[in-house]
Amino acid sequence: MPEGNAPFSQTEYDRRIALTRTAMSEAGLDALFVTDPSNQAWLTGYDGWSFYVHQGVLLRMEGEPMWWGRFMDSMGALRTCWMSEANIFGYADSYVQSTVRHPMQELAARLKDMGLESAKIGVEMENYYYSAKAHQVFVTEMPNATFADVTALVNWQRLIKSHEEIAFIRKAARISERVIETAIDRAAPGVRKNDVVADIMHAGITGVDDIWGDYPAIVPLTPSGLDATAAHLTWNGDPMREGEATFFELSGCYRRYHAPLCRTVFLGTPPKEMLDAEAAQIEGIEAALNAARAGNRTRDIAQALVDVLQKHGIYREGRCGYPIGLSYPPDWGERTASLRVEDETILQPGMTFHFMPALWMDTWGLETTETILITDSGPAEALCNVERKLFVKD
Amino acid sequence: MPEGNAPFSQTEYDRRIALTRTAMSEAGLDALFVTDPSNQAWLTGYDGWSFYVHQGVLLRMEGEPMWWGRFMDSMGALRTCWMSEANIFGYADSYVQSTVRHPMQELAARLKDMGLESAKIGVEMENYYYSAKAHQVFVTEMPNATFADVTALVNWQRLIKSHEEIAFIRKAARISERVIETAIDRAAPGVRKNDVVADIMHAGITGVDDIWGDYPAIVPLTPSGLDATAAHLTWNGDPMREGEATFFELSGCYRRYHAPLCRTVFLGTPPKEMLDAEAAQIEGIEAALNAARAGNRTRDIAQALVDVLQKHGIYREGRCGYPIGLSYPPDWGERTASLRVEDETILQPGMTFHFMPALWMDTWGLETTETILITDSGPAEALCNVERKLFVKD
Repeated sequence: MPEGNAPFSQTEYDRRIALTRTAMSEAGLDALFVTDPSNQAWLTGYDGWSFYVHQGVLLRMEGEPMWWGRFMDSMGALRTCWMSEANIFGYADSYVQSTVRHPMQELAARLKDMGLESAKIGVEMENYYYSAKAHQVFVTEMPNATFADVTALVNWQRLIKSHEEIAFIRKAARISERVIETAIDRAAPGVRKNDVVADIMHAGITGVDDIWGDYPAIVPLTPSGLDATAAHLTWNGDPMREGEATFFELSGCYRRYHAPLCRTVFLGTPPKEMLDAEAAQIEGIEAALNAARAGNRTRDIAQALVDVLQKHGIYREGRCGYPIGLSYPPDWGERTASLRVEDETILQPGMTFHFMPALWMDTWGLETTETILITDSGPAEALCNVERKLFVKD
Repeated sequence: MPEGNAPFSQTEYDRRIALTRTAMSEAGLDALFVTDPSNQAWLTGYDGWSFYVHQGVLLRMEGEPMWWGRFMDSMGALRTCWMSEANIFGYADSYVQSTVRHPMQELAARLKDMGLESAKIGVEMENYYYSAKAHQVFVTEMPNATFADVTALVNWQRLIKSHEEIAFIRKAARISERVIETAIDRAAPGVRKNDVVADIMHAGITGVDDIWGDYPAIVPLTPSGLDATAAHLTWNGDPMREGEATFFELSGCYRRYHAPLCRTVFLGTPPKEMLDAEAAQIEGIEAALNAARAGNRTRDIAQALVDVLQKHGIYREGRCGYPIGLSYPPDWGERTASLRVEDETILQPGMTFHFMPALWMDTWGLETTETILITDSGPAEALCNVERKLFVKD
C-alpha cells in the first residue's frame, strides 16, 4: 500500500481533530460529515480535483476520520490522506451524475452499517459542494437520524494557524510577490491582457526556488478601466490602454495555502481623484494594520479603515477582508469572521486575513491589499513585501 | 450605461430562451431560478468569477431574463449581460456570508414584489452553487410557492450546439492542440512537474493567434507513475522520472468553451502491457468514433469501446465520456447525457462530447481522449488534431 503524502505532521492532524471534536461535542454530534474540500484537506490531507462529484470526510468522536468518494478518487485518497486504507471508501461509478440513483444513498447505507442509523449528524448546509439534493437524499435515507446544520464548524477551527501552516502561507507570500511583480512589469499599452495573465500564471506555478506553485483557488482578476468598476471580471484578449487603471488581484499558492495580494497599475498619468484616493487608501491601510492587534476585534480593523477614508470624503460599504489559508476553488476566503464594522471576532496571534480595502468607484477601481498575520504583540505583519502604492507607468 | 459584451448574437440568445421556455412550459413552471454559472452565462452572457456567492438568473415565461447577485457583481453583469439595466439586480453586501441573514431572503422578497408569491418555481437542486441552506431559506421565505426540482433542465437545452457555439469549440480545440503539444514537448526526466504545468498554462492562456485563452474549468491534471492510477490528482514540484507514464488531461478554453484532450507520455521504454493497452485503446477509439453517428445512441459509443477492450482482455468500468461546451469550475462536463452502456440518449448533429476511454490500471494510467462532434452523417469528427498514440520519449 503506498503511504499517504499528507503535507503536515501527524501531531498537526491530531491537533486539528481534537479541536474539531471539542466543537462537535459542544454541538452534541455523534458524527460530522464534511463536504467542504478545504475542510476535508485540513483534516485528512486529501488533495484532488474531484470535488465536482459528491465526496466527504466522516468524523466520529473516536477513531480515524474516513474519506468517502467516487471509487476512482479513492485511489487519490490513498495517495494523499494520512489514514489507513481501511478508512478510505469508494462508491461505484454508476452513482456519478445518475438520474436514477444518488451517491448519498450509498453513504447512508454505510452509516447505517456503522451503527449511525439514529445518530446526530452534523452537515455543512451552506457549502458549494453539499447540494440541496444531496441533503434531501441524505435526510430521506436516514429517517431515524437527526441532522444539525454545522456550517463552518470546521472552518472556525482553522481560524488560528499553526506554525506549520504559517510557514506554508509565508511560502505562498513569496510566490505572491513574484506574480504581482510580473504583472506590474508586463503591463503596458498595447499588450494583450491574456498575455499578461499567461505570464502571471507561469510565474505563479513556477514559484520561487524550491517553493513550487500550486493553483490558486481564484484565477487572476485583472480588469481595466470601466471593467475595473466590477469586482470579479476575468480577462480577455483586448490590449491594455493608455489612460486606464488595471487592478491585479492575485495569489501565490503553496500546497493549497494562499497569500492574496492586489496592486493597481495605471498606464499614463492618473487623474487627481485617483491619486487622492490612493493616498487615502494607503493611510487607511496603515491605520487598519495598526488596529489589527491581538485582543482587538475584527471590527476595529474595519473601523480604522472607514474612519480614514471618511476623513478623505470616501464612503466605502462592504466588508474589507476575510480569513485566508487553505482553500480550493471557488473561493480563497475561509467564510468565518469578516473584517467589517459589525463583526465581533477577537483577534488572536496566528490569525491570517486578506485585508482588502479595495475601492470600486464609478469609472475606475483601485485595489491595494495585504495578507496580514496577527502577531503576539504590536501591529499586524504584512506577509508580502511589495511596495504599497498605485504603480504608474507612463 | 455601458453596453453588454455578451459573446453571441441576439438571435442565439433568443434561440436559447425559446428552448428553455418550451421545457419550462412542459414542467408547468411560472419561473425558473438558474444557479449553475454555465446556465447563467448561456442564457444571459454573464461572465465573472463571482459564483462563490449566491447569484442566479430568473427566467419567466415573458420578458427578458433577470440577473440577480451581489451588488458589486451587478457591475459585472452590466458589463457582460445583454439585458437592459432594469433587469440587473444587486443585493447588499451585508448579506454576504452573514450568519444572521441570507441572500435568498432578499431574492424571495423580490419575487413576491413581482407577483410570484404563489408561483411554481423551478430550481436546480443538484448544483454546486445551490446550497442545501439556500434551498431551505428559499422554501421557508415563500410558503405559498411551489418548488420543482428541474436540475439540468437548461443543461439539456445546451446538448446540441449552434453553429456559433461550434465555432467557439473549434477555437478552443486549436488551443487544446497547443497545450498538449507543449506538455509532450516539455516532459523529460528531471524536469519538475510544476515547471511543465507553468508552460502548459502559459500556452493555454496565450492561445493561438487571435484566439486568446480563457481559464479552463479544470486545472491541468498531470499525474505520473503511481499517482496516475488516480484520476484527479494535480501536480507537485517533483521531477519527472525515467520509466514512468504521465497523462496530461487538459483543455483549451475560448470564451468559456472547452475542447478537452488527453495524451500520455512515457519517459523511457514502456512495458509491453502498456503498449498492448495502447493498441487496444486506439482500436477502441476508432470503433467508438465510428459508432458515434447521428441516429445511434450514447450507449453505442460506450459499447463499441467496451467490445474492443474486452477482445483485448481489458475490463473497463465507468462511463467513457460526457457532453462538453460552455463551463465554469469545477467541471467542464455538462452533466446530462453520459457515454455509458446504459445511457439511451439519441445522438444528433451538433452534439459535442469529451470521449474519454482512459485506462486507470493497478500501477499506471493511460489517457488518450478526443473531443468529438456528431456530424450530419458518417463517424464523429475529432476536433483536435494531435497524433493518437502513447508518446514515448527515450
